Amino acid sequence: MSLPSNYLQMRSTVTADGELKMNLVEKEMPTPKDNQVVIRIEATPINPSDIAVMLGLSDSSKASSTGDGADRVLTAPIAPQIMPALKARIDQALPIGNEGAGVVVAAGASDYAQSLMGKTVAAMGGGMYAQYQIVDAMNCLPLLEGNTAKEGASSFVNPLTALSMVETMRMEGHTALVHTAAASNLGQMLNRICQADGVELVNIVRKDEQEQILRDLGAKYIINSSKDTFMKDLVDAIHETGATLAFDATGGGHLASNILSAMEAAAARTPGAYSIYGSVKHKQVYLYGGLDTSQTTLSRGYGMAWGVGGWLLPNFLAKAGMEVAVRLRSRVAKELTTTFASSYTDELSLTDMLDADTVRRYDAKKTGEKFLVCPQMPI
Amino acid sequence: MSLPSNYLQMRSTVTADGELKMNLVEKEMPTPKDNQVVIRIEATPINPSDIAVMLGLSDSSKASSTGDGADRVLTAPIAPQIMPALKARIDQALPIGNEGAGVVVAAGASDYAQSLMGKTVAAMGGGMYAQYQIVDAMNCLPLLEGNTAKEGASSFVNPLTALSMVETMRMEGHTALVHTAAASNLGQMLNRICQADGVELVNIVRKDEQEQILRDLGAKYIINSSKDTFMKDLVDAIHETGATLAFDATGGGHLASNILSAMEAAAARTPGAYSIYGSVKHKQVYLYGGLDTSQTTLSRGYGMAWGVGGWLLPNFLAKAGMEVAVRLRSRVAKELTTTFASSYTDELSLTDMLDADTVRRYDAKKTGEKFLVCPQMPI
Repeated sequence: MSLPSNYLQMRSTVTADGELKMNLVEKEMPTPKDNQVVIRIEATPINPSDIAVMLGLSDSSKASSTGDGADRVLTAPIAPQIMPALKARIDQALPIGNEGAGVVVAAGASDYAQSLMGKTVAAMGGGMYAQYQIVDAMNCLPLLEGNTAKEGASSFVNPLTALSMVETMRMEGHTALVHTAAASNLGQMLNRICQADGVELVNIVRKDEQEQILRDLGAKYIINSSKDTFMKDLVDAIHETGATLAFDATGGGHLASNILSAMEAAAARTPGAYSIYGSVKHKQVYLYGGLDTSQTTLSRGYGMAWGVGGWLLPNFLAKAGMEVAVRLRSRVAKELTTTFASSYTDELSLTDMLDADTVRRYDAKKTGEKFLVCPQMPI
Repeated sequence: MSLPSNYLQMRSTVTADGELKMNLVEKEMPTPKDNQVVIRIEATPINPSDIAVMLGLSDSSKASSTGDGADRVLTAPIAPQIMPALKARIDQALPIGNEGAGVVVAAGASDYAQSLMGKTVAAMGGGMYAQYQIVDAMNCLPLLEGNTAKEGASSFVNPLTALSMVETMRMEGHTALVHTAAASNLGQMLNRICQADGVELVNIVRKDEQEQILRDLGAKYIINSSKDTFMKDLVDAIHETGATLAFDATGGGHLASNILSAMEAAAARTPGAYSIYGSVKHKQVYLYGGLDTSQTTLSRGYGMAWGVGGWLLPNFLAKAGMEVAVRLRSRVAKELTTTFASSYTDELSLTDMLDADTVRRYDAKKTGEKFLVCPQMPI
């Protein structure tokens, strides 16, 4: 099999004058070192965590595209007040796309790298919105016989995030979970994991149709934050499950604080658990997303044993160590088409990704909508 | 030595109709069990953490006193919107006062309890605003020969809090500290500890005279949050010290968020430390007080590796374990009149505590002002 000498890779640049630019660049085909492999990328998803980086907080409602094929360029304005937060990346053309899957078409000399040659693998490592990408062989997850690259494209971000939420729960001494934006692709996986593992999960959604998605999945606790009875329903569910850990995808506003208030109110129902400085059991909300970009507001009306903080998969995996990472990955490979199945709204070529109307579709991050980039599609 | 059959103890009650009531009640002298001792309380400080409980978030500007001597009663109104947070304590007459010192006048049968008989000890355990109090012998810290009850009255809350901040720093992998309201009695102790232990400390204050207090103590980093250059000064100091942990006494408003922003800006100055998801090193702010009762607002403009949370001494000590607690206490006893010396604005009898004007003085929590209750003073 002979490889082309060059390939196309997507880049995202924030310019000093406040513009987001996305376009394809031509790269030379690399030669893998001992422990590296080159993957011909066949499928790579657009996750919310990718969008944050690729669109650089620009205003996609004002995005426009020019040119066609490999020359298409997307531009979008960035509000001046956002620019200071982007200082560290100005005028750097960043490769984007955190995960993907495809066939290993070149491998370094090491036994492990060689063993992957010709195999369909999923990989994490950045720069996946490209026709090819070179990665460390250790960052590859060989798919089981019969599983396709499209089935394996989302093997890392959502599956490992959902599994790591349950791991975090165990490592930090909690016994049940609260999750917001709970009808998302990730939230559905989390429901399947919790049901399989016997972990109680309180699902928070905003809309009736999201309630229905979770009801169809067999979820036991579904709380709608748009209802007048939200706080009472939440306290009841937290009291029943004993959840003292929440993962919040929205990040902004009062939701994290409301969850802590509900945990405290639930604790106060148990005689003896309450002291004048609040309940003694630590109550934690991790913000792992920023669907709501407004400030986070905390009332602090929940005693002294509480925490709010950012949560990021790579940081968790680095802390948890190799043994945990290997265990979680092997579960993903085994349950790829069941627990961790993803479905996609549409498949896009690399050029489609740069179409302004298409950008607005994936930037909307609607529940149940998810896009798959197929870099081998004609551009 | 014969003990009286009854003694006076201060109580604080939040009534269902929104009133704070403080008054003395007569209690029967208890008989200590095996591991208990009875202390004749000679000196007990009014700490901010005591005030929060004793005044129950009432409006002390509208407080009034009636009666005299043992019959004096203090009342103050509580705003209706605060009442839900006080639900768990309604109509309970709570004993108050977290720490104090005095002479052991009765002891249970155990060897350790007997060994304390006649000794001057400091103790933590609640209900210290009283002429006598019964405590577990293990909660007593025998003062060194020659140290008085007044010198030992504040042996626990401030000394152990300051020491535990440095312990927390080490346990959680940080190497330098940021502290707010840094000219307080606690802040001054923290400066002495950090100087002795070679720990870099960034002191945040609001006023020129507070800067002066810390300059006189030999503090190296003193940042004034009222100055226009506050954020720049803070980033510079955090960059120089490498501080990634802060303890904030104010709790409300933007200060915690500003500290995290400064930590992130300092990290971004170090090439390689910055990724698109923010700096990788965990940045933490613990809120251990609530001088600012407004909501805490977080901008989240500091990546994903950050946390904000409540911090309470008893919760920390429970987590750190007995070995740590014993080590910290023994340091307090040894350095009681140097590192951990407290000075007091005024000495109050139990009846003085119930005088409305006096209440307003201690509720003001002015920097450098601290009151000592002497329950053996004539009421």
